[in-house]
Amino acid sequence: MNIKISKKILQNALSNVSRAILPNSPVPAMQGILLSAYDSKLVLLASSSNISIKIELSNTLNENCNLTIMQEGKILMDARYLNEVVRKSDGETISLEIIDGQLVKIFTDNTEYKINGLNPNDYPAIDFESKDSKAFKLNSLDFTKLVNSTVFATSDSEVRPELTGLHLIFNHNSLKAVATDSFRLSQNEIAIESDINLEVNVPKKALIEITRIFAADEMVNVRLSQSMIQFSNENILVQSRLIEGEYPKTDRLIPTNFVLTMDFDKRVLQNSIDRSLFIKSEGINIVKLNYENDNLSIKSDSNEVGSSYQDLPFLKADGKDLKIAFSGNYVEDALKVINASKVSLNFSGELTAFVIKNEKEPNEIHLILPYRVYD
Amino acid sequence: MNIKISKKILQNALSNVSRAILPNSPVPAMQGILLSAYDSKLVLLASSSNISIKIELSNTLNENCNLTIMQEGKILMDARYLNEVVRKSDGETISLEIIDGQLVKIFTDNTEYKINGLNPNDYPAIDFESKDSKAFKLNSLDFTKLVNSTVFATSDSEVRPELTGLHLIFNHNSLKAVATDSFRLSQNEIAIESDINLEVNVPKKALIEITRIFAADEMVNVRLSQSMIQFSNENILVQSRLIEGEYPKTDRLIPTNFVLTMDFDKRVLQNSIDRSLFIKSEGINIVKLNYENDNLSIKSDSNEVGSSYQDLPFLKADGKDLKIAFSGNYVEDALKVINASKVSLNFSGELTAFVIKNEKEPNEIHLILPYRVYD
Repeated sequence: MNIKISKKILQNALSNVSRAILPNSPVPAMQGILLSAYDSKLVLLASSSNISIKIELSNTLNENCNLTIMQEGKILMDARYLNEVVRKSDGETISLEIIDGQLVKIFTDNTEYKINGLNPNDYPAIDFESKDSKAFKLNSLDFTKLVNSTVFATSDSEVRPELTGLHLIFNHNSLKAVATDSFRLSQNEIAIESDINLEVNVPKKALIEITRIFAADEMVNVRLSQSMIQFSNENILVQSRLIEGEYPKTDRLIPTNFVLTMDFDKRVLQNSIDRSLFIKSEGINIVKLNYENDNLSIKSDSNEVGSSYQDLPFLKADGKDLKIAFSGNYVEDALKVINASKVSLNFSGELTAFVIKNEKEPNEIHLILPYRVYD
Repeated sequence: MNIKISKKILQNALSNVSRAILPNSPVPAMQGILLSAYDSKLVLLASSSNISIKIELSNTLNENCNLTIMQEGKILMDARYLNEVVRKSDGETISLEIIDGQLVKIFTDNTEYKINGLNPNDYPAIDFESKDSKAFKLNSLDFTKLVNSTVFATSDSEVRPELTGLHLIFNHNSLKAVATDSFRLSQNEIAIESDINLEVNVPKKALIEITRIFAADEMVNVRLSQSMIQFSNENILVQSRLIEGEYPKTDRLIPTNFVLTMDFDKRVLQNSIDRSLFIKSEGINIVKLNYENDNLSIKSDSNEVGSSYQDLPFLKADGKDLKIAFSGNYVEDALKVINASKVSLNFSGELTAFVIKNEKEPNEIHLILPYRVYD
């Protein structure tokens, strides 16, 4: 391999493809990026057990690529060193040349690195073929909104692996996302153009990387099968495995009849919850809400540290008096992703889940289970 | 105790006084801030083994203090909770009232915290009297410059405790600071107005906090004795212990005859060193410099990862050919604090220490010992 390419474009592609790599993988090859130069293109590939990313660079696809292939070939290089060397190299274009076995010379006008590569034959074959898959397109920004408004509610515990993923329900012209750790649930829905009818469960990390890679406003190609999901545009292909196991039926969990509905200025509610979480460092985050005689108060306490009490201003209340205790952190997490100045809390009882709604997005629902404590 | 005070002024004072506290001190009282309200003032005190800070707040000293003392008294409060509660409280003024034993109500118009205090009698007596001390004034910004340009070269190892401090040499109208970890040395000197002739060794952390606390351009009062150093203005008093043990005589270490002197654009030298440190993550930071036939090159290598090679542009060279190997990190550290666009490297031999000089500050000297390796 002996190539010359725009330093900026290579640096950007390396940084994107590296998103697939799990730091500290015990297999050295999986810490690497596979570079293959052939057919007037440079292909970068990186992978972990969850996610694989392939990026094609060519003068046809990228105007400013300035790719020249003096000799075709391939090499596997540790991602950390390759990223750092390319980032630190000065100059418009950068050259990569295998000079001796797996020793790669990476050079610009005034800087020359010689980096030990790895054997490209040690890299596992990654299967990007998608048999029996269905294809459609979706808007990257809509999808990012869908992921961001829900993915934080997935579980971090491997006790129930299916809850660590975001559940995507493709139902013809709609795509619904559901995330739950069994203490709270967030769901949202966007319109798409497809005739697909399928439910899949995608690892959280893969979705977060996908929304970062496809950050521009574009129509992204999606391919879906029973075992994997692929997102791609002309340059980049990202493939994620799916999480096996049956996802719980969650629709019946979401209450539709409420005994008390309250509207808030989101920032006022957010600040008030934040103030009540002053003892978060102690791992205590139970917040107690009391609506009584058209007054709303919020308090928190710990025997060791102390307590907080606030009157909490609301915009509108409709319903009966209620006392409820819940995790202030969960409410904080939901308020953080809600992109609206007004939100509502919708209670259906003191011991049943309540719903936080985004005034502007009727499909966006955040469900939180209360604690069964109240003094 | 029952007081009312400007929330902003209290918050700022708490944050400053907390700089004395060592997180995770095993003695709960030493995690606390002692608040004493008496004689129309509120006094905040915090301390660790190295440093003690006392701040006085009163309407006389701070126009916007708005201090009202309804009842005098004192209380000891965990710094973490007190800082967080005051920061999170909304409003112009904040009230602190002991309501029951050591339970303190901290409240504004719409938020009320009740925080468990600690017994103020558990707080050790801090001696701020400075017997046999000498007093003078110095400019805070000059002192900050002196500290910042040297303190990074102190040792982190307790093997030779005297090297963990910054050595301050008061010699009538000059104050010289020396720091060394025995592999490198940095020194600088400022003019002061005093008739003091004394050498002291001050803990690094204390000096860093002092430069942060006295960040405004002002004349600061200094008091110096055999056992402590104090910095103060009308509001704040900071006292640090001194490190015992004899500081090495360093003057004779600094070479004055050079066989090669080279001038550099600081940024060019900095970037070049940075590029050669691409394998820093491996703990390898040896950089090799080669001046030969009026050309200068810089290289670095490791068997495992690879190597780097650059031609290094310089502005001027005066002297004979030379090869020298040194820690790129040490040079990087020195270049980071040098506030000038031009620097010089001054070599007196291949195996003797070399000197980095700031073109604009003849008193600022950074000495670095070379490695005894060259291939």
